[in-house]
Amino acid sequence: MSRLWCTIMGIIDDVVDSDMESLISDLQILIRQPSISAKKQGLDKCAKTIQQMMTKVGINSEILYLNEKKDVPPVVYGEVRSKSNPNAKTILFYNHYDVQPAEPIELWETDPFSGKVDGNYIFGRGAADDKGELITRIKAVEYFLKKTGDVPCNIKFLIEGEEEVGSANLEEYLRLYQKRFECDIVIWESGTIDEKDRPIIELGLKGILSVEIISNGPTMDVHSSLAVLIKNPAWTLIRALYTLCDTNENILIKDWYNEVRDFTDTELDALANEPFDEQEFKKEYGVDKFINDLKDIEAKKALAGNSTCNITGLISGYVGEGINNIIPSRAIAKLDFRLVPCMVPEKQFERIKNHLKEKGFDNIQVRFLDGEAPSRTPIGHPFVSLIKEAAEEIFGTSIISISSAGTGPMCYFDKILAVPSICIGGPYKYCRAHSPNEFTKIDLLNKTTKCMGKIMMKVGNII
Amino acid sequence: MSRLWCTIMGIIDDVVDSDMESLISDLQILIRQPSISAKKQGLDKCAKTIQQMMTKVGINSEILYLNEKKDVPPVVYGEVRSKSNPNAKTILFYNHYDVQPAEPIELWETDPFSGKVDGNYIFGRGAADDKGELITRIKAVEYFLKKTGDVPCNIKFLIEGEEEVGSANLEEYLRLYQKRFECDIVIWESGTIDEKDRPIIELGLKGILSVEIISNGPTMDVHSSLAVLIKNPAWTLIRALYTLCDTNENILIKDWYNEVRDFTDTELDALANEPFDEQEFKKEYGVDKFINDLKDIEAKKALAGNSTCNITGLISGYVGEGINNIIPSRAIAKLDFRLVPCMVPEKQFERIKNHLKEKGFDNIQVRFLDGEAPSRTPIGHPFVSLIKEAAEEIFGTSIISISSAGTGPMCYFDKILAVPSICIGGPYKYCRAHSPNEFTKIDLLNKTTKCMGKIMMKVGNII
Repeated sequence: MSRLWCTIMGIIDDVVDSDMESLISDLQILIRQPSISAKKQGLDKCAKTIQQMMTKVGINSEILYLNEKKDVPPVVYGEVRSKSNPNAKTILFYNHYDVQPAEPIELWETDPFSGKVDGNYIFGRGAADDKGELITRIKAVEYFLKKTGDVPCNIKFLIEGEEEVGSANLEEYLRLYQKRFECDIVIWESGTIDEKDRPIIELGLKGILSVEIISNGPTMDVHSSLAVLIKNPAWTLIRALYTLCDTNENILIKDWYNEVRDFTDTELDALANEPFDEQEFKKEYGVDKFINDLKDIEAKKALAGNSTCNITGLISGYVGEGINNIIPSRAIAKLDFRLVPCMVPEKQFERIKNHLKEKGFDNIQVRFLDGEAPSRTPIGHPFVSLIKEAAEEIFGTSIISISSAGTGPMCYFDKILAVPSICIGGPYKYCRAHSPNEFTKIDLLNKTTKCMGKIMMKVGNII
Repeated sequence: MSRLWCTIMGIIDDVVDSDMESLISDLQILIRQPSISAKKQGLDKCAKTIQQMMTKVGINSEILYLNEKKDVPPVVYGEVRSKSNPNAKTILFYNHYDVQPAEPIELWETDPFSGKVDGNYIFGRGAADDKGELITRIKAVEYFLKKTGDVPCNIKFLIEGEEEVGSANLEEYLRLYQKRFECDIVIWESGTIDEKDRPIIELGLKGILSVEIISNGPTMDVHSSLAVLIKNPAWTLIRALYTLCDTNENILIKDWYNEVRDFTDTELDALANEPFDEQEFKKEYGVDKFINDLKDIEAKKALAGNSTCNITGLISGYVGEGINNIIPSRAIAKLDFRLVPCMVPEKQFERIKNHLKEKGFDNIQVRFLDGEAPSRTPIGHPFVSLIKEAAEEIFGTSIISISSAGTGPMCYFDKILAVPSICIGGPYKYCRAHSPNEFTKIDLLNKTTKCMGKIMMKVGNII
C-alpha cells in the first residue's frame, strides 16, 4: 500500500505541476462570470458554468433547486463514488459560487471581473473567496480521475450561491436533499495560508446577525432651516446606535453575552500555540493599534471568541458633491454582529429590539437581514489530525485555529448531517477578500490542490 | 400724480393678467435649463439664457466674471435707468439662477426639469426657488417698458449662480463691481406666501456654517470579522457627532452661543403678531410634534432666532441592496449649522474643531464647506413700510417676519453696499423648495408680478 500510495501521489503532484495553466484558465472562466448574490446578478449562469466544468471532468453534477422557490439561487451538487473503494468514507466539499459586490469599483487597479494574472497573482472578485478555493478541489478530483480512472474515497460537492448574503436557504437545501449530502466529513471553504506559508486549519466559524436599523423622519427631505422644529432622523439614529456599545466596544445590550461559553483548556492551549504576527497584520490594514490595545493572546482570543457590533453601512440625506441643506426623511444603518458559541441569532435579534425600545427609541425599526449560529469542531476529533498530517506533508507545517473570526453556515451541517466541518484551503491570509483588488497566489493554488489530493488519499485509507 | 398712478398701475395689472402664458413659458425655459451649482452643471448656459431673456425685453444686461477665477459661475447683471425720473432711488433685485440637486430623483412624480403645468401648479426644480421668483421681477420690468417705455425708478439686477452652495464668491463680485451694484434698497429673493394668501415680508436671514466631518479607518474596506481588532471609523464618527448636541438639540460646543443677541422688544412684538399655523405646518411635513414640544410664540422664536446643528448627509461603507460585511475605510457626515445675529461663521468653525480635539477625537477631520453671516434689517426702516403698503394693496394683507429661518448672503450687501435688504416674493410657503416635487402656483406668480410693479412705482415716488 505504501509504495502504491507514493506512486499515485507522485503522479497526482506531477499533473498538478504540469497542468497549472489549465487550472488558472478555468479559474479565470469562473471570475469572469460575475455572480453577486447581494444583487442577484449572474447566479444561475455561474452555477451552470460550474456544473458543466465538473461534468466535463467526470464529476456527476446536477443543479438543485428548492421546489417552490424559483427566486432562490440554485445549489450545484457533485458526486464521484470510489470504484475501487466503495465503502470508503465520504468527503463533502463545501464551497460557494457567489461573491461579494465589487464596490467601491474605483479602488480596483484592474477590472474586478477580468481575472488578470500578474506574476504569481490572479486578481478579481472571487479569485480567493471562493472561486479560487473551489477550483483546487475540482482539479484534485479531475487529476485522480484522469490519471487513475478513480478516486481514493467518495467525494461530494455542495456549492451554494448565497454564502455572501447569509445562506438563508441552505438549511432547507440540506433538509430537502439530505440523502444526497450524507457524508463523514465536510471540508469547508475559507481556510487560509499565512505570510510564512503555513496553512491555517480552522475548526470553527463564528455566527452572525445582520440587521438594518431604520430611523424615519418627515415624509420627505425638507429644507434644513426647519431643523429648529423638525427632528432629524439622522440624529435619532446616531443616538440609538450610540447606546449599543461603549467606547471599548463592549456591547451594552441587555443579556447580550448570556449564552457565551468560556474557552476550554484545550482551546486555550491551541490559542497559545497559534502564531500571530501583529505587526504584519497592522501593516496590512493600515492601523496603528488594535481596539483596547489588545496584544498577543488577548488579540487571538478576540479573533476566535469575541462577539462584535459592527457598522457595515450608514446612509442618510445628500452625500453627493457639494451641499444640499436638508433634513433627510430617513437614516439607515446596516450592522453585523458576530456571534460565538453558544449564541443564538434569533435570540440576539429580539434583544436588540428590546434594548432600543427600553431606551425609548419607539420610532426606530430593526430589520432582520441574516442570522447564522456559530459552530466549532472539537480539536480532538480524528479528522483533525488526519487533515493536519496531509497539510504538513505539503506545506511542512500547519496551524490549528479553534475558530475563524469569520462566519459561514457550518452550523447546519452539524445540526442536520451531524458531521464535523474543518476549514482547509488555499487563499493567502491577506488576500483582500471582500475588499478591492482581491487576489489569489498561483503557488498556493498549486500546493492546495496537492493538499486536497492528499486529504482524499488519507480519507480513502481509513479502515 | 394720483390719477396717473392709477392709470399706469391699471395698465400694468392688465398686461400681467393677459400675458400669463408668456410668463409661464419663460419660466419653463429657465426650469428646463438645469443649473445645479453643487454639481457645476449647466451654470454658464443658464446665465446666458437669462441674459438674453433680459436683453430681449429691454433690460441692459451683461454677464460678469471674476477676472482670475475662470471656474466661478458668472453673475448676471441687469440695469434700466428711469428716463422720466433719473434721480429716483434705485432698487437692486437679488436673485439666483442656480438650483439644488434634484435627488432623490425617484421621488419626483414628474421630470424635475420639465416645468410641467398642472392646473394652478408648475412643477420643477427651481420652479419656486428661485427661477419662479426671478421671472416675476423680469416680467414686471418688461411690462413697464412695453407699456410706458420707461420704468418708474432705477432698477438693477444681481443674479448669482452659487446661492445654493453658499455664495462663496459673492463678496468678491460685490467688491469688484461695487459701482454697478450701488443702490438704495435690495429686494431679496425667498419671500413666501402663506396658506391664507398672506405675503410674508422677511427682514432678515440666518447665517450658515456647513462642514464635513470625516473619520478615517483602515486603508481600505476590510472584512468585518476583523472588527474585534480594527476600530470602525463609523463608530468614531457616531461618537464624535453624539457630543455635538444634547437630545433637546442644545448645541454643546463650548462658547457656541456667546455672540447670540437677545430679541429686541420691537422684534418680540412682531413675533407675537406673526401668524403661525402649527397644524398646517405639521401636516405638510408629516410630523406629529416639534422638537422640545415647542408651541406658539416659542416655535416662532425658534424659527426666527435659534441656531441649529443639523445633519444633512451621512455616508459610510456599503449601502446598496443586501449585505456586504465590511469595516468601512471611512465615514463622513455633512452638517449645517444655522447662525443668528451676531454669530460669525469662521469663529464657530474654530469652535467645532476645538470641541472635537478637546473631546479626544484627534483623528477626525473637519472640513469647511460654506459660511455666511446672519443679517437683519430693522423693522423701523422706511422701506419696510413702503413694501408692506405695496404688498397689502395687492394681497389685502401682509405679515412682517423679523427673520426667515433660511439663509442667504444678505450680510454682504449690508457690509459692502450699506443698504437694507427685504425679502418679498412669490412662492407658496410649502412649495417644497429643496425637496422632490418643488412647485410654484400660477395665481401667486400673477399677484407677485403685480406687487413688484407696485413696489417700483412706490420707490419711484419717493422724493
